[in-house]
Amino acid sequence: MSKQETKDKGITVKKEENMPEWYEQVLLKSEMAEHAPIKGCMVIRPGGYAIWQAIQDYFNPVMAKYGVKNAYFPMFIPESFFEREATHAKGFKAEVAWVEPKGEDKQRYAIRPTSETIMYDTFSHWIRSWRDLPLRINQWCNICRWEVQDCKLFLRSREFLWQEGHCVYETEPECEKEAQAMLMEYKKLCEEILAIPVIAGKKTEKEKFAGAKTTYTIETLMPDGKALQCGTSHNLGQGFAKAFNISFKSKDMKDELPWQSSWGISTRLIGATVMMHSDDKGLVLPPKVAAVQVVVVPILFEDSKEKVLKAAHKIVGDLTKEGIRVHLDDRTEYSPGWKFNEWEMKGIPLRIEIGPKDLEKNDCVVKRRDIAGYGKGGILTVNLVSLRKEIPKQLDALQHALFETAKKHLDSHTVHAKNWDEFVAAIKEKKWVKVYFYEDEALELAIKEKTAGVTSRCIPLGSTVPEGAPCFYSGKQATAEVIFARNY
Amino acid sequence: MSKQETKDKGITVKKEENMPEWYEQVLLKSEMAEHAPIKGCMVIRPGGYAIWQAIQDYFNPVMAKYGVKNAYFPMFIPESFFEREATHAKGFKAEVAWVEPKGEDKQRYAIRPTSETIMYDTFSHWIRSWRDLPLRINQWCNICRWEVQDCKLFLRSREFLWQEGHCVYETEPECEKEAQAMLMEYKKLCEEILAIPVIAGKKTEKEKFAGAKTTYTIETLMPDGKALQCGTSHNLGQGFAKAFNISFKSKDMKDELPWQSSWGISTRLIGATVMMHSDDKGLVLPPKVAAVQVVVVPILFEDSKEKVLKAAHKIVGDLTKEGIRVHLDDRTEYSPGWKFNEWEMKGIPLRIEIGPKDLEKNDCVVKRRDIAGYGKGGILTVNLVSLRKEIPKQLDALQHALFETAKKHLDSHTVHAKNWDEFVAAIKEKKWVKVYFYEDEALELAIKEKTAGVTSRCIPLGSTVPEGAPCFYSGKQATAEVIFARNY
Repeated sequence: MSKQETKDKGITVKKEENMPEWYEQVLLKSEMAEHAPIKGCMVIRPGGYAIWQAIQDYFNPVMAKYGVKNAYFPMFIPESFFEREATHAKGFKAEVAWVEPKGEDKQRYAIRPTSETIMYDTFSHWIRSWRDLPLRINQWCNICRWEVQDCKLFLRSREFLWQEGHCVYETEPECEKEAQAMLMEYKKLCEEILAIPVIAGKKTEKEKFAGAKTTYTIETLMPDGKALQCGTSHNLGQGFAKAFNISFKSKDMKDELPWQSSWGISTRLIGATVMMHSDDKGLVLPPKVAAVQVVVVPILFEDSKEKVLKAAHKIVGDLTKEGIRVHLDDRTEYSPGWKFNEWEMKGIPLRIEIGPKDLEKNDCVVKRRDIAGYGKGGILTVNLVSLRKEIPKQLDALQHALFETAKKHLDSHTVHAKNWDEFVAAIKEKKWVKVYFYEDEALELAIKEKTAGVTSRCIPLGSTVPEGAPCFYSGKQATAEVIFARNY
Repeated sequence: MSKQETKDKGITVKKEENMPEWYEQVLLKSEMAEHAPIKGCMVIRPGGYAIWQAIQDYFNPVMAKYGVKNAYFPMFIPESFFEREATHAKGFKAEVAWVEPKGEDKQRYAIRPTSETIMYDTFSHWIRSWRDLPLRINQWCNICRWEVQDCKLFLRSREFLWQEGHCVYETEPECEKEAQAMLMEYKKLCEEILAIPVIAGKKTEKEKFAGAKTTYTIETLMPDGKALQCGTSHNLGQGFAKAFNISFKSKDMKDELPWQSSWGISTRLIGATVMMHSDDKGLVLPPKVAAVQVVVVPILFEDSKEKVLKAAHKIVGDLTKEGIRVHLDDRTEYSPGWKFNEWEMKGIPLRIEIGPKDLEKNDCVVKRRDIAGYGKGGILTVNLVSLRKEIPKQLDALQHALFETAKKHLDSHTVHAKNWDEFVAAIKEKKWVKVYFYEDEALELAIKEKTAGVTSRCIPLGSTVPEGAPCFYSGKQATAEVIFARNY
């Protein structure tokens, strides 16, 4: 089957019926990404990469506001560095791809699965006194987690792109405050830009980052009932500083160990955005990250072609002036219907159709990409005079609607389970389960085994446990409210 | 010796006396980059990375104008892909780092030394008909050339960052035209943004890219008389299309092979910028790529501190409104003299000093970073009323002066040699030598051996050979005007 034919067929499974297959079809047919001819790897196509760029364009100024500076460290990490922080080494060793020594090289190099060790060795030379702190460094780079065999596009792959921030502070309160502040910036990015509602929380001891004191996380619920970790921020404590000999002379000339944080988001967010909002007709993109926000499709007949094209060009010019990313599809080799399908598949937020009859009334027709759209009929007739004002409003409305729909799903699929039976029932219904829990690694492991994979996602920030509430599983005095779910 | 002491010492060798040592000291002490604890690798510090970001911010819209879209391909390339285009494989094989098979993987993977092979295998699935052409893809990524043992910061390292554009066209004229157009965009970037004058030319058969039909290059002359390749653009012909089964149905439904181009620039440009413009006091940066363009240093005394600081803040506010990147250095733990040295070391284009005596006259003092500066005394007194107008002019003047100085050096160090003796003399004087040459790989090899490393840099675009002019080396009828030089 040729590419053209496949495309014409549209998505052949329903989101509700077979989400993994649907998700893969949406990404392939909307040309967001595809599997590379290398085990576990993906090709990020321009459609997908544009979202990553939008995330970068949004997040670089956010980081700058905190004084974070971009830099770049080698992708190769000497094996000896890995051994220095024991917990960290243990946590990552199974995932590492190695480049073997050759020529003058005396040891193996890991291809970075994360950059704490290589960065912190360097930080130890940069930091001498309190004057050098806080140090706030970020890098945008590729990351390798070699153990992945089967690539789930954007969600799980051997190589992916991410951003990793690494900060060093004089005191723990500063460190803790900014570790949480970055988490809140991630929450804002997800909710306001990607229209993905998330819960901000703390990981349990069992689930925290290898080498961290505390790991904060934002988590969301995918439409198939699985949780997706969207970003993490770690208060690393002083463990890495000790392991990598980072110390500073304080104002009163004492040698002190600094406090460190690290935090990251990855191309996984592209997958979350696609899976959250898209539908059986293909991709649905939040206007704020869509590379093309509006497509104009002129309806061309021989006798009115010139007039209609002229009007279409004017629309494009007007909207561009408003700062809207607009594309004119004036190809003559495809019919309007074919074009509608293509742009719906590709998730363009708004489509403007204009034909001779519309033009007579100085109107055009606007179609919103989401199913809710404009209710029955699903279209909005807009006079050309008010188009420049109307389109930004419609883009905002769509952005908002996508978030609200996702938020409603999250809220309606979160339940509190008092005991094991309620817990199992809720998991079966593909819900997030909140429970009062006696935090203990062995208990979490037991739950994971009994349920074939349900894990603790987080302890929501600000959550409390009522006096005397028992653990849903062990009956002991509960220590935290914890969300459990299956996850990606 | 502590970091602080090293910094205080300034650059301890002169640019003219020992350029490699001077270059390294400038980069280290201005905190642009440093050697990583991995053989052949570097750490790009925020100062250096800011220039790379400035290059990206400039070049992304340039590419978009041509319809180029950013994407991302895996860094791992199956060994079998490498073998497909024989010349290409031969050209790169010695430089490759390999990840060995593990688990289910059946073959070795190269860490990309360039991405032609992995991209073109994928392109073969994307391209079906003339409707899919031209295809224009770019990626910003890291690259590995493993054979490098000794890292020359930015100029030569095992890992570096680059941009690689890969385009596919229906016809050769389109391909050839855009391959040259991208070269001209690189020239513009170097000259207008980095203030580096370059010669645009064609590589000889011996020096062209492994697998290319024609390689275009921009080359510049470093102050030490060595040439530096600043960017290349290749007309790849149809060889890769054949090797990777890329074909398309033409408008008249025939199966045809497309034409391909690829083109790239790398973080080497940061090194070129630094080496070209900097001096014995440290870094000198062209204003267009300086992360901070103006530093304001208030001269503070107890009794006038408040007034002076207020005026300094107003200057910062005013210049920021003009779109100038300005930094206020109001640290109290350092003296003005210490600050002047630090900002000169870091290459900030303009320094504004303001003290109580200046303020009485509503003046401030402007100091330009380059040695030419403002002639004797080297400072310019500017009334605060006209500062907003004056500073952009001064930044432009500095940008222009840096280019002119470099251009004068290039022009005055380019000579034409008629015979071998003149050639050898010119090379000894660290000049670029233009010669009429009978193009032949064996002759180039002989010249390289006899001179211990002098190679052909390019055949300048538009150059001609007078009727009957003999080759400077072989005496045969010359076929091209060629520039020879030692190179990085």
